[in-house]
Amino acid sequence: MSGNRCQISLDRPFAMHRGGELHGVEIAYETWGELNAKRDNAVLIFTGLSPSAHAASATDDPAPGWWEDMLGPGRAIDTDRFFVICVNSLGSCFGSTGPASTNPDTGFVYRLNFPILSIEDIADGGAAVVEHLGIDQLAYVIGPSMGGMTALAFAMMHPDRVAALVLISSAVRALPFAIAIRSVQREIIRSDPAWNHGDYTGHGADAGMQLARKLGMISYRSAEEWKHRFGRERASADETHPGWGFHIEFEIEAYLEHHAKKFVGSFDANCYLYLSRAMDLFDTADHGGCLESGMACVKAERVLVIGVTSDILFPLQQQRELAGLLQTPGRDVTLTELPSKQGHDSFLVDMDRFRPVISGFLG
Amino acid sequence: MSGNRCQISLDRPFAMHRGGELHGVEIAYETWGELNAKRDNAVLIFTGLSPSAHAASATDDPAPGWWEDMLGPGRAIDTDRFFVICVNSLGSCFGSTGPASTNPDTGFVYRLNFPILSIEDIADGGAAVVEHLGIDQLAYVIGPSMGGMTALAFAMMHPDRVAALVLISSAVRALPFAIAIRSVQREIIRSDPAWNHGDYTGHGADAGMQLARKLGMISYRSAEEWKHRFGRERASADETHPGWGFHIEFEIEAYLEHHAKKFVGSFDANCYLYLSRAMDLFDTADHGGCLESGMACVKAERVLVIGVTSDILFPLQQQRELAGLLQTPGRDVTLTELPSKQGHDSFLVDMDRFRPVISGFLG
Repeated sequence: MSGNRCQISLDRPFAMHRGGELHGVEIAYETWGELNAKRDNAVLIFTGLSPSAHAASATDDPAPGWWEDMLGPGRAIDTDRFFVICVNSLGSCFGSTGPASTNPDTGFVYRLNFPILSIEDIADGGAAVVEHLGIDQLAYVIGPSMGGMTALAFAMMHPDRVAALVLISSAVRALPFAIAIRSVQREIIRSDPAWNHGDYTGHGADAGMQLARKLGMISYRSAEEWKHRFGRERASADETHPGWGFHIEFEIEAYLEHHAKKFVGSFDANCYLYLSRAMDLFDTADHGGCLESGMACVKAERVLVIGVTSDILFPLQQQRELAGLLQTPGRDVTLTELPSKQGHDSFLVDMDRFRPVISGFLG
Repeated sequence: MSGNRCQISLDRPFAMHRGGELHGVEIAYETWGELNAKRDNAVLIFTGLSPSAHAASATDDPAPGWWEDMLGPGRAIDTDRFFVICVNSLGSCFGSTGPASTNPDTGFVYRLNFPILSIEDIADGGAAVVEHLGIDQLAYVIGPSMGGMTALAFAMMHPDRVAALVLISSAVRALPFAIAIRSVQREIIRSDPAWNHGDYTGHGADAGMQLARKLGMISYRSAEEWKHRFGRERASADETHPGWGFHIEFEIEAYLEHHAKKFVGSFDANCYLYLSRAMDLFDTADHGGCLESGMACVKAERVLVIGVTSDILFPLQQQRELAGLLQTPGRDVTLTELPSKQGHDSFLVDMDRFRPVISGFLG
């Protein structure tokens, strides 16, 4: 499949939503398919907290992407029909400017001197790419999880640029259960002596990042899935190790260990902290004073909201709230509740349920 | 209210369920009320992971107990009628032998040389107290959470000693979601450099214990409760502190911080690790090869199982499973599903719902 890895560099200052500005901002993105002559077949995808812009394999990068089964020629997001753009979030560490980048004004890595990151800033990073590509209006803006928050912020802040929205397992604002989980994850990372108040070498805080990822996995999947998948199965001998008298006993522990080890080394600790906090801070009511006022700016004519019954991080009630708030005369809002068992992560794994819903909406 | 703080010291070796034996075992317990002449009015309470035997205030210790509103003269567990015993779990650190105790054979604190602790050992600790008190059969054995697992183990291992059982928000075995949460909590504690492979001074690993407690609170309460209680309320200025750029922002974070700080200093880190693992290891199927075989030994004539709809740690399905497995001709099994909003901890806080159910069952 054709595809391009790109990066734009802004020559204007980038004003941050909660104060401060960045200079020389770079936004990495990838594209698949071709923009048509009318420039009206573009689809913009915002990602969850941790993925890069590499949503699917391409000639530039044949490695499978994080949404490989969703995106490609003839797939649900059909790159034979659409020009698909996926951006790496501002604040992340896969080519876009973030806390791990060097501040061009000082020559030093930003680290904790990076200004507070908001979901709105990530949306503006996407807007800069869209503007650069000369696209007036996107046929679809799509986002799962944090990417759904970002897609919503984008639709609120750049209403004329969005014809249709697909919001997957996201929310109009963070609620305290999810805030608590993310806050503890951040404290786990900050408690790792290797984090060193953000001034580390390498990716920083490997042990803390691993533990935070394990807690993340607990919040991303579901008790029901794990019950059927792991039960009380014991870990095989080569997965256990002493751990000072508390070795890995159960297969579920080996599974968490495997995922944690895979994650570490690929993600910068400070970037993780900034992106995680951005989700906690997100609240559409910040735009005008109430949830309704934030939504009132949205002009998208068609909206698809997808939620999963087993999601504990962005529960179904939040999808219903989101769909309800977007309901307005003249807009077609579809709420699809999927009985997927894999919790919040279902959009990454329960493809047989997700593909037809998205492909149906994209016509 | 009258009440006694007591401790027995066993002059026989105490064989541990998973191997090894302890010498000079001590079990702390408290009692309220009077044992009648027929010695048939005794109630035995096993606790959750962290409480001491101090379930209610008493002349010996007027401080409110962990189940103060449940237990006392005229209360649901009526100490005017019953002789109530609450034991501190073997492996804990409030007067009973555990990893923080000195091994009389070596003169050194056990620490990680304490043998693997099982729920069955805690049950046997309770049995030693009952035997010491000369009670052949308990009118009721009651346990919430880990205490419910212990009460069940007690009923399986000492069937003639149990006339009736009250099992609250417990389970016949640990499932992977709960194992994952407890495993991450233990790893958080073990990752604190102050834990020092179990060889610490003081309570050990204060930072790790605080973080583990925060994760515990997330699993003990419910998203619904927190949504209504905290919403997106910001923490007051005196609750926030810099935290290297990631200070406490939301009231939910201040709440977790408050509970974490209260917990630390009261509980020994190694004891926590041992008790936590004991819950993961618990599986009634270990007794005879299947869940049914473990239950087959139970002789209690009446059983009350209480579950809470919002419990994510010991979910309602596990209460239904437990009640179903205990169902047998001639036994009266009552399953009560309460719509409490406070999650697993409801038995400690939603007294208006719990009291009438327990008081009704105790007649």
